[in-house]
Amino acid sequence: MKLLIVGGVAGGASAAARARRLSEEATIILFERGPDVSFANCGLPYYVGGEIADRSKLLVTTPEKLQARFNIDVRTKSVVEAIDRSARTVLVRNLKTGETYDESYDRLILAPGAAPLLPPIPGVDLPNVFTLRNLQDIDRIKERVDRGIQKAIVIGAGFIGLELVENFVRRGISTSVIELQDQVLPPFDREMTTPVAHVLASQGVELILGDSAEGIHPTESGLEVRLKSGRSLAADLVVLGVGVRPESKLASEAGLEVGPRGGIRVNDSLQTSDPAIYAVGDAIEVQDFISKTPTQVPLAGPANRQGRIAADNVFGRKSRYRGTQGTAIVRVFSVTAAMTGASEKALRRANRDFRKIYIHPSNHASYFPGAEGMSLKLLFDPVKGALLGAQAIGGAGVDKRIDVLAVAIQAGMTVYDLEEMELAYSPQYGSAKDPVNMAGFVAAGMLRGDHPQTDVEAVLAIPPEARPLLLDVRTPEEFATGSIPGAINVSIDTLRGRLDELPRNRPIVVFCQVGQRGYLATRILMQMQHEVANIGGGYKTYLLFNP
Amino acid sequence: MKLLIVGGVAGGASAAARARRLSEEATIILFERGPDVSFANCGLPYYVGGEIADRSKLLVTTPEKLQARFNIDVRTKSVVEAIDRSARTVLVRNLKTGETYDESYDRLILAPGAAPLLPPIPGVDLPNVFTLRNLQDIDRIKERVDRGIQKAIVIGAGFIGLELVENFVRRGISTSVIELQDQVLPPFDREMTTPVAHVLASQGVELILGDSAEGIHPTESGLEVRLKSGRSLAADLVVLGVGVRPESKLASEAGLEVGPRGGIRVNDSLQTSDPAIYAVGDAIEVQDFISKTPTQVPLAGPANRQGRIAADNVFGRKSRYRGTQGTAIVRVFSVTAAMTGASEKALRRANRDFRKIYIHPSNHASYFPGAEGMSLKLLFDPVKGALLGAQAIGGAGVDKRIDVLAVAIQAGMTVYDLEEMELAYSPQYGSAKDPVNMAGFVAAGMLRGDHPQTDVEAVLAIPPEARPLLLDVRTPEEFATGSIPGAINVSIDTLRGRLDELPRNRPIVVFCQVGQRGYLATRILMQMQHEVANIGGGYKTYLLFNP
Repeated sequence: MKLLIVGGVAGGASAAARARRLSEEATIILFERGPDVSFANCGLPYYVGGEIADRSKLLVTTPEKLQARFNIDVRTKSVVEAIDRSARTVLVRNLKTGETYDESYDRLILAPGAAPLLPPIPGVDLPNVFTLRNLQDIDRIKERVDRGIQKAIVIGAGFIGLELVENFVRRGISTSVIELQDQVLPPFDREMTTPVAHVLASQGVELILGDSAEGIHPTESGLEVRLKSGRSLAADLVVLGVGVRPESKLASEAGLEVGPRGGIRVNDSLQTSDPAIYAVGDAIEVQDFISKTPTQVPLAGPANRQGRIAADNVFGRKSRYRGTQGTAIVRVFSVTAAMTGASEKALRRANRDFRKIYIHPSNHASYFPGAEGMSLKLLFDPVKGALLGAQAIGGAGVDKRIDVLAVAIQAGMTVYDLEEMELAYSPQYGSAKDPVNMAGFVAAGMLRGDHPQTDVEAVLAIPPEARPLLLDVRTPEEFATGSIPGAINVSIDTLRGRLDELPRNRPIVVFCQVGQRGYLATRILMQMQHEVANIGGGYKTYLLFNP
Repeated sequence: MKLLIVGGVAGGASAAARARRLSEEATIILFERGPDVSFANCGLPYYVGGEIADRSKLLVTTPEKLQARFNIDVRTKSVVEAIDRSARTVLVRNLKTGETYDESYDRLILAPGAAPLLPPIPGVDLPNVFTLRNLQDIDRIKERVDRGIQKAIVIGAGFIGLELVENFVRRGISTSVIELQDQVLPPFDREMTTPVAHVLASQGVELILGDSAEGIHPTESGLEVRLKSGRSLAADLVVLGVGVRPESKLASEAGLEVGPRGGIRVNDSLQTSDPAIYAVGDAIEVQDFISKTPTQVPLAGPANRQGRIAADNVFGRKSRYRGTQGTAIVRVFSVTAAMTGASEKALRRANRDFRKIYIHPSNHASYFPGAEGMSLKLLFDPVKGALLGAQAIGGAGVDKRIDVLAVAIQAGMTVYDLEEMELAYSPQYGSAKDPVNMAGFVAAGMLRGDHPQTDVEAVLAIPPEARPLLLDVRTPEEFATGSIPGAINVSIDTLRGRLDELPRNRPIVVFCQVGQRGYLATRILMQMQHEVANIGGGYKTYLLFNP
């Protein structure tokens, strides 16, 4: 077996190591365009900011180590320029010498990754305008920062964009971020990103949403970015972080099937339309675990697992890739944002019926010092209660709850299963009723009809004169600090004695701070034959939508 | 509906609140022996140490709040002394007045909890000998500590015992802990508790294992604890933390079925042998989720969920309790120990066939600063790979992995499912291949026959002359700092060139530091037709068994 692998970072390096474990006999050659293999691409922004101080930490392994340990023929600075599928050869250009040569294969694994998208505007090739893909890119950015800059602009408020913003701020650089959409972190639902927008503002970051760059122009002192809105911003450095496109040119030129958005098409063995050629990582089209439709999800975890699976199949082991859930996490200053499965907007785009709930729990027992808050949104099937997606944002423990929910989605679990989960509780780590249990209680209560809930945005979309009565069941003190416009206040502990103050001929929408007292109020009013629903997650949910 | 609830802490308070949510009409009376309801029993030790400084934090709710919000008739300092099942009444003693009275019921929920076991030795009733169950107990302990003590003895190295030890040390008290078994934290497998024993020693705690107290005697200056071994220890204060027994006397005297270990027997609706009477919490016998046999698991999480389920059934909603997994967690100084499902010793006791693996990963990407190590043990079915149990010990992230594995067990997942899990990765939170994925790879590799593994304790049980060749594939530098006695050293990166140094007629057991290089060495040697196995988790696993 002679196996060639194109690309030596996450998926390619994983495939190479797995292949060698499966066969000592095989000839394994790994081609990598850059000088490095298997670098820590998710760590690059932190090298600029200094949180990762030692550049060598970013090299997960080196060509020499891969050679010594796995007996892989690693050829860096080598570009595979063409595939001759009938001859089963690739054309390789050695960037060090400029020479080209053919290399034959029995099996080929493509792991070329994805390249930063360049917006079609003037100035993207100016000095001090950067993209971020590899160590050389981050070296260039860091070198410029180290020479001293006052002002940076990041175009694109996705995961990597915001990680760069954080690291520029850490270096004392005044930073603006420009995002075409009306929210940061576009994979999330908009309201769930409110705490991220808050923390960016609190760190002095200028956040420009719903706008885009129309051109970047050199000035005497640096660069000027002109926006569609007509504004223009000065900067010493601009980073373009508007997205990536699969590196599928090699594949498409070889006649391999490629999807409409450029991802190399593979079956569940990660085999391309040519059975001798596999493809993995950011360059491929995967199946969305929830919608079962093709998508592209450039994430390191799936890339690594795909590398392993492709190698298994190359060596005759049946191994299937089950699709990508899109589990992702990002830290933006003190805020953690994480998600798994489908977002609400993805479900709406797919015309998929769903229900949703919000809760705002603490990460651990509130009686123990140091509890941190989070907001958790759960999306689920309205009939069976199967989990469709989850998003969480806040402090410590966000990652844990999203991981738990990611497994629940993988297992095909329902909101009823969340009620039963037996998670580790002692006061430093959780609560006797964990946030995940609470989410299950609230969601199952909705589906069972015990806990009717309504969406704050739906209620507020009704003209005020036609709206249900908005009943704030918090204390008068809480009510005085701010409530939903138009709400009246009857605190939960006085509600049973004041039922005659409520109209009998008007629906009631109840809310409290996080939903729990509102739930009890809803139960009381339901049993008194009122038409009533609770605002799930209460005033805190309202504030996510109306910051 | 007139519902009486006996016991107002975790299960009882949950049942009361749930009952009221289900019915505004019902009469709900809650009897509690002590002065408090729903206190934070898992937080009590931290009030002695001062980490929880404000006593009021320990009161999750008060009788007044429960009354005002849930319209529950809360009767504290009230002991239910007898049940007349045919009359459907209970006999209540008001401890404030000494009076007794009958109270009738339609349904009765028993949530009396468990009481500390008193060892059958002299001196357990001496002043300054304490048990810990409620706020009054912790008040007494704290009062004694506040008056100033030099030396404390904790009898029993279970969860609560070690939490007390930590808090005594925090107060500057010289502390000894005595445990009958040859390990701390008896629910865990012994080797997994090695890091806890280490941290106790590093904090100056004297740990006396495999010994027990035979008597506690007053001395001029305080107390003397005489041990079975003949030793005797002086102390100012002794806490008995040797376990709990279900408070099932009321139930058994009423003729309700009680299991052999004293737990009230219930069906999966949490109904006792009398259909009008339910029971929840530490007082009941539950079904072990793995072995499907009756057991007793005094944990707050299950108690809370059981309260909810019992109330559901009282009000005619079918709700089932699916059994207890025994998910538990404890912090001992800087070490977190957590488990879910069955331990190895429980599986052995049950004659259940199983396989096990060990890994020693970091909680997040090692290239990002602040990574902390953990040891993870996974137990699974040898045929299907179904997960049976997991234990983890170490620093940050232990809780997350055990929660993920608890859900996997609940879902009936296998080690193959762990390979596929898509968990949230960015370098602050995890790795592209999360520890849970790694555990799946190692376990699935074992079951597929790709990665033969052996137990270090089994190898060392073989007489040296009959043992397989022990091959340490770490670097010479690592080998020089310590290895398994009798091992020879051939580092992994030189192994392919030194194959002729290895005997062909002797089995080989390979190991490295954590198992990964050993796995590659095993793959190489297997393909060279050697009889070979890897020590799962490598030298670090050896050190757990041979500290």
